[in-house]
Amino acid sequence: MRTTVGIIGAGPAGLLLARLLHNAGIDSVVLESRDRAYVEQRQRAGILEQGTVDVLRAAGAGGRMDREGLRHDGIELRFARERHRVDFPALTGGSSVMVYAQTEVCKDLIALQIEEGGPLLFEAEALAVEGAESERPRVRFRREGREGREDVLECDYVVGCDGFWGVARRAIPAEHSRVFERTYPFGWLGILADVPPSHDELVYARHDRGFALLSMRSPNVSRLYLQVPEGMDAGSWADEEIWDELERRLETADGWSLERGAITSKSVTPMRSHVHEPMRYGRLFLAGDAAHIVPPTGAKGLNLAVGDVVTFARALVHLEETGSAERLDAYSETCLRRVWQAERFSYDMTTLLHRAPDATPFEDRVQLARLRRIATSRAAGTDLAEGYTGFPLD
Amino acid sequence: MRTTVGIIGAGPAGLLLARLLHNAGIDSVVLESRDRAYVEQRQRAGILEQGTVDVLRAAGAGGRMDREGLRHDGIELRFARERHRVDFPALTGGSSVMVYAQTEVCKDLIALQIEEGGPLLFEAEALAVEGAESERPRVRFRREGREGREDVLECDYVVGCDGFWGVARRAIPAEHSRVFERTYPFGWLGILADVPPSHDELVYARHDRGFALLSMRSPNVSRLYLQVPEGMDAGSWADEEIWDELERRLETADGWSLERGAITSKSVTPMRSHVHEPMRYGRLFLAGDAAHIVPPTGAKGLNLAVGDVVTFARALVHLEETGSAERLDAYSETCLRRVWQAERFSYDMTTLLHRAPDATPFEDRVQLARLRRIATSRAAGTDLAEGYTGFPLD
Repeated sequence: MRTTVGIIGAGPAGLLLARLLHNAGIDSVVLESRDRAYVEQRQRAGILEQGTVDVLRAAGAGGRMDREGLRHDGIELRFARERHRVDFPALTGGSSVMVYAQTEVCKDLIALQIEEGGPLLFEAEALAVEGAESERPRVRFRREGREGREDVLECDYVVGCDGFWGVARRAIPAEHSRVFERTYPFGWLGILADVPPSHDELVYARHDRGFALLSMRSPNVSRLYLQVPEGMDAGSWADEEIWDELERRLETADGWSLERGAITSKSVTPMRSHVHEPMRYGRLFLAGDAAHIVPPTGAKGLNLAVGDVVTFARALVHLEETGSAERLDAYSETCLRRVWQAERFSYDMTTLLHRAPDATPFEDRVQLARLRRIATSRAAGTDLAEGYTGFPLD
Repeated sequence: MRTTVGIIGAGPAGLLLARLLHNAGIDSVVLESRDRAYVEQRQRAGILEQGTVDVLRAAGAGGRMDREGLRHDGIELRFARERHRVDFPALTGGSSVMVYAQTEVCKDLIALQIEEGGPLLFEAEALAVEGAESERPRVRFRREGREGREDVLECDYVVGCDGFWGVARRAIPAEHSRVFERTYPFGWLGILADVPPSHDELVYARHDRGFALLSMRSPNVSRLYLQVPEGMDAGSWADEEIWDELERRLETADGWSLERGAITSKSVTPMRSHVHEPMRYGRLFLAGDAAHIVPPTGAKGLNLAVGDVVTFARALVHLEETGSAERLDAYSETCLRRVWQAERFSYDMTTLLHRAPDATPFEDRVQLARLRRIATSRAAGTDLAEGYTGFPLD
């Protein structure tokens, strides 16, 4: 098999890249190890930055998002039983975010790809990227049901959108790589519940007992999270215990109340920051989780992936149109500027709102002073709102 | 001896408080354990916030400051050999700071107090505050040359402006106190040098080898600092080694150079954050370093002390004018709001610019991303400029 851009992974990064390239008349092949049903239902992020919304619309993939997504003009911060709203459009000059689940973005992009785009191979497991430093890199892969026979996808460029555990990053020799990471001594216990959300915007709560987040997937489905100790098993919490704990941490002085409903899903997410530098090696490019992980506070993961593939697609179009590889050569540097701002923002949002198990009383007071500063200073509020609604693409 | 307000300590807090009370027609007595020469020459801070400048002027103590002080409209941040100026008036709507040494503020206030004010007793060592919870608190003290005989100052109110090691705080029972603190694994090696400053504004430099600060006392006297390991002895650095290290850490890509001169003073300052809550017990009030310490990054110490005594003086005047003790009762709470913002700011400035000995590569990158954010976002720059030029008095 032969194509211009070989894309490993049919998550939002790989699927959107295929779409952007298709729209620019550049052919690609997407290899995805899982089947379509799995890809279309794995629960991930749900907050699209203003820039991500704009990109999806411009790519012709924003129709259902605009009909079914929930535009949010702010978030609420809760601490010391107080409530403070961060008003995004007022602080940023018009930006907002869209609540629309990653699974829905994937469904839309898969449908478009199958209808209009190039090959999208499910159950096609990439085994290795070879010849990344050559003119003609290759992806070795194996398709389900072919009795273990291997195939080869020959490309001009390979883009690894295959996540943290994927094969793409492993094709970059260790002596050309530098890894930056941080783990956090807590995780998120997340639930999906069949109940209308108890607040019309996301609520981020800092509490002495730990962080809590009230979020939603749709007008009838709530998504809620609790900070739990690292490595805790989701099954060790009974449903009513989860609701009780959410109620305590989200409590306000003005009598707001939390509606409960049937919990349909329960899982624990670890918290990690990770960056692989550079994001390019020869003709192999890394995008999204293959290159960087952020803790979920602040919802930057999906949006960073979108930024990466937009940067790649624009750079490749620039090369085709002008003959200049300048932008393609600058891919890693361009992406990393934005990545590190998002890493910083995610780290700051995490430490702003979570209770570290070893937090000193001094750190607790500084944390509250930081929240009060955001609540009382337009500059500090704007800094947060700009970060939340998204750092601009270069 | 009998007075309305007994003030322990003739640092800037105690001296300014005596001045503010004198101007309001309220009598006070200041007790200072050291002699006048010592008080007039101990090197401390040198940056006055806009609000501090305004208070000194309004108190009639701003004459020489306005003639000899250096108004600064910004600072320079250096990192990765780049330079970025933070423009205070442009970002804050007109605020700036004044470079005028604490010793000069003290000299001016001492001269005024001796000429116009109430008793200011040097070499009068406060031994204890007694009866703080009664209507008539007392300060026991001992004057130099009186053969160990003790005196008593009877007051309506006692204000402890006697610093971190003073007796005032010890008069608050432990069961009514809560202490918040943090130490930092580094200190500042500070020098005074007879050479015009090599830049006309303060330069805060983040460098892989550690923090450096270029500051000044006057147009002909430079004040410079180097981050050094905690507990290091100032004598272990030769003068030329200090200049070499300053040159390395302050280096820029555009060929800026550092002028050297004779070093006239060399000392190491430890870095510490400390807050005592509450700042009031009965009729005893704590102000300045007696209640809180900040690391010197961001120059908040003197300015916080000024905020405390202004708050106390206004509250006492309010009581005399209206009969309402409401503001006096709210003294601790009012001060602590501002104190915790300054503690947060000082902690943030310290962690923004210093290299922790155990910093991970991830933390280094986040630190650089934070500096880049300040350099590129008006909101982040404004947040810093507002903090630096000072949080408003309530």
